[in-house]
Amino acid sequence: MKALVFNGELALREVTRPKRATGEALIRVILAGICGTDREILKGYSSFSGIPGHEFVGRVAECDDPKWLGKRVVGEINIACRQCSWCLRGLSRHCPQRTVMGIVKRDGAFAEFLALPTSNLHEVPAEISDSAAVFVEPLAAATEILEQIRIEPGTQVIVLGDGRLGLLVGQVLAEAGAKVALVGRHRSKLDLAGRWGMEALEAGTAVPRPGSFRVVVEATGSTHGVEEALRLVEPRGTVILKSTVKDSGRLDFTKLVVDEVTLLGSRCGNFSTALDLLRRGRVHVEPMITKVFPLEDGVEAFRYLQQMPCLKVLLANEGS
Amino acid sequence: MKALVFNGELALREVTRPKRATGEALIRVILAGICGTDREILKGYSSFSGIPGHEFVGRVAECDDPKWLGKRVVGEINIACRQCSWCLRGLSRHCPQRTVMGIVKRDGAFAEFLALPTSNLHEVPAEISDSAAVFVEPLAAATEILEQIRIEPGTQVIVLGDGRLGLLVGQVLAEAGAKVALVGRHRSKLDLAGRWGMEALEAGTAVPRPGSFRVVVEATGSTHGVEEALRLVEPRGTVILKSTVKDSGRLDFTKLVVDEVTLLGSRCGNFSTALDLLRRGRVHVEPMITKVFPLEDGVEAFRYLQQMPCLKVLLANEGS
Repeated sequence: MKALVFNGELALREVTRPKRATGEALIRVILAGICGTDREILKGYSSFSGIPGHEFVGRVAECDDPKWLGKRVVGEINIACRQCSWCLRGLSRHCPQRTVMGIVKRDGAFAEFLALPTSNLHEVPAEISDSAAVFVEPLAAATEILEQIRIEPGTQVIVLGDGRLGLLVGQVLAEAGAKVALVGRHRSKLDLAGRWGMEALEAGTAVPRPGSFRVVVEATGSTHGVEEALRLVEPRGTVILKSTVKDSGRLDFTKLVVDEVTLLGSRCGNFSTALDLLRRGRVHVEPMITKVFPLEDGVEAFRYLQQMPCLKVLLANEGS
Repeated sequence: MKALVFNGELALREVTRPKRATGEALIRVILAGICGTDREILKGYSSFSGIPGHEFVGRVAECDDPKWLGKRVVGEINIACRQCSWCLRGLSRHCPQRTVMGIVKRDGAFAEFLALPTSNLHEVPAEISDSAAVFVEPLAAATEILEQIRIEPGTQVIVLGDGRLGLLVGQVLAEAGAKVALVGRHRSKLDLAGRWGMEALEAGTAVPRPGSFRVVVEATGSTHGVEEALRLVEPRGTVILKSTVKDSGRLDFTKLVVDEVTLLGSRCGNFSTALDLLRRGRVHVEPMITKVFPLEDGVEAFRYLQQMPCLKVLLANEGS
């Protein structure tokens, strides 16, 4: 099959189809999304080599359990041991033995086929299109915030970053009742935020008052964003770190202690919650698709992402 | 009156007695404690100039309200406006207009007298000695953790730092039902921790397993301690920053996000809680007193602190 393989550099290669282990399904990928983490991987994040890609929608091609055959699915990206204390506590996303599809020691979705345990799969309801379903993984990550902190109706939230993650987080928190402002650098992305009920602020021109937000979400993917988040959060407020950055950064510990700020790391979330939001049409995702490339042009797609202010670039498996 | 005055350097000076404003009491200091924050102030923290010192026990010498006259008191260190939304929400410790005795724009306790609003005062019950009462402020800061997070009985907690703050935090959390380990570098201090029911670990020799503690308390006062705390905390665990350090430090944001760690700044706490713990004899404080200097030898006391591994050095106002 064709796949994008990263091994210090990214290239389209002909590789053997993944062998599925017992309990796994072989899935023909329909669409895969390129994520900020994929771009970090190409810079060395997680020392990954193999086939990247962890956002996908596909169709089950082979499986032991006949009920999954032919089903349209999305899949949770952490493959856990299912036996350790983390897994038994329902926190398999933190299983220390886990592999992570396309990120840690396991091939991912930038290929014609991928293999995943059926226990990781969620069937996609008919109401959700392929190009919406490919957003389930990042949308689930956005909803994770609601599992971690309580958002009171009317809570003043500011989201830093007008990328795809920022726009998803902003929508999810607004849907949960927060008053959301979103700061970004790109007119077209800010227009979407405005259209979707957020107060859109252009970075550098609109300067929010320091210490005036109960909750600040850092979704810029830069260490500078964390400094800015600390500046904007009110005493006893919460800064949520959503983006994975390869670098470590400096932090003003005194501000953290004196203002008793909470800094909260937030990663993957619940797929069922995300599927439910999409099925009920509560979040907008398809307007974020900037361009769809065929899988064969994947290297070109990454180059395009580097040059253009994109929201979401997808790879389509034309054979599907 | 005599006072230690910091103005780029610390010196004993003869200064005028503080003028008390309406609603304030003039207090004759009995004992004052030197805290890590005072040493940071001498390095430039908070750009303070004036009389430092914020841990004290004293006796009310003058006051409009006769009920306070002659009472033995301790005093909350944040002097708030009592009118802003923070004050009205009961969070006057975060009032943006606040001054802080001996730390921010207000003279402190390294003097014969100090002035404080009577609303900041707590009478010291007869069961508590002067040399225990002088620990109320730092003990209150230690109990603040219990206001911020829930400690389930049996929770595995590790405290980094065998200083006075670490030993107070360890005792408070053990009293709340946690299983507490404490890491330090000084045999004599670790012996106290062991005697007070904690597992005492010598830094560098006993190496706890990474990612094995639900709660890690950073009380070393060094930015390196924060790195170590992040290494020791388990996924979804909490790192509590207790010490005020002047420098900012580097932080591994990826670890924070991937492991969904909570980093929580924690500062001043509730004086009533601390007084209650002392009255009921639930924490040990007096064995932490390394040496008592007369106020007149305050400069010498700071020099002594720099050279010796001390727990708590006090300044006594011999006139009291």
